[in-house]
Amino acid sequence: MKPWITISRKTILDHSKWLKVEDHSIQLPNGTTIDNWCWIISPDYVNVVVQDEDENFVCFRQTKYAANGISLAPVGGYLEPDEDPLTCAKRELREELGYQASEWVSLGRFPCDGNHGNGFANLFLARGAHQVGEIIVDDLEEQEIIKLSRSELMQSLLDGEFKVLSWSTAVALALFHA
Amino acid sequence: MKPWITISRKTILDHSKWLKVEDHSIQLPNGTTIDNWCWIISPDYVNVVVQDEDENFVCFRQTKYAANGISLAPVGGYLEPDEDPLTCAKRELREELGYQASEWVSLGRFPCDGNHGNGFANLFLARGAHQVGEIIVDDLEEQEIIKLSRSELMQSLLDGEFKVLSWSTAVALALFHA
Repeated sequence: MKPWITISRKTILDHSKWLKVEDHSIQLPNGTTIDNWCWIISPDYVNVVVQDEDENFVCFRQTKYAANGISLAPVGGYLEPDEDPLTCAKRELREELGYQASEWVSLGRFPCDGNHGNGFANLFLARGAHQVGEIIVDDLEEQEIIKLSRSELMQSLLDGEFKVLSWSTAVALALFHA
Repeated sequence: MKPWITISRKTILDHSKWLKVEDHSIQLPNGTTIDNWCWIISPDYVNVVVQDEDENFVCFRQTKYAANGISLAPVGGYLEPDEDPLTCAKRELREELGYQASEWVSLGRFPCDGNHGNGFANLFLARGAHQVGEIIVDDLEEQEIIKLSRSELMQSLLDGEFKVLSWSTAVALALFHA
């Protein structure tokens, strides 16, 4: 069972730091070639499920452009250039909540689109989280902080209240550890 | 807490049925406008976690272009034009495994990229699944069928063996129901 091989790649859209698109020429294990496999390049990001020292989960209520209505959301954001995922996760926790955490659990690193790329989601659980300073606002969305018990978090997940794919992934995986 | 409003949209890349890209002009609740918010259009898809009549989980071992090495995977595939998600899920279960299921549980419908779209993942658990015919091969990847107990599925998930974001989401959510 062999991987597909990238023979060549060319940029067909250079939109911004948020999006580039390439066409890849690919060779399959059976020798077949595909000449125009589209490949989406966008920044990797983190999502952080935050559990505080009282074992409550600290989430946001917010809107998101691709989701209908108001959603629950974990901490999250894009990696800066050359930033490693854990550093980004700690930065986003500090900026979005003013928190630091005593224990970090990696929940995995996943391509967002198995066929066409679109960056990697780096998921974390931050435990023993506690306030160390003020929130540093730089997001475009309004956010309200909400604290949920473990059973409330579970019910919200099962009710579909975490409306973006990676948000539900992060919360579901965190619940197996927290 | 109001949603962002799409003022206008224009196509900036028409690659194929797999990918189009638009630029959206957007108005934020505070009145700010953004003129070049990129929006990725790709087909919605399904992932189906399959539990057979012996309560084992029927998965694949396969490669995927965006993932390193060999991954475990649920049943999955893109919706045909105008196909609804459950019909697609039943079709993919029939084609990829030759199975039908006696019970279908919806695990949610999620935008794959909360900021930029990239289609919706429709996730299902199919219970009481059983063979009714031959496999109809049309995927580009080689696939091996593997059956896992509930505890093996859980351990594989926590070991990161489901290497694509939506695959881990589907398996994690299914484990809360199965």
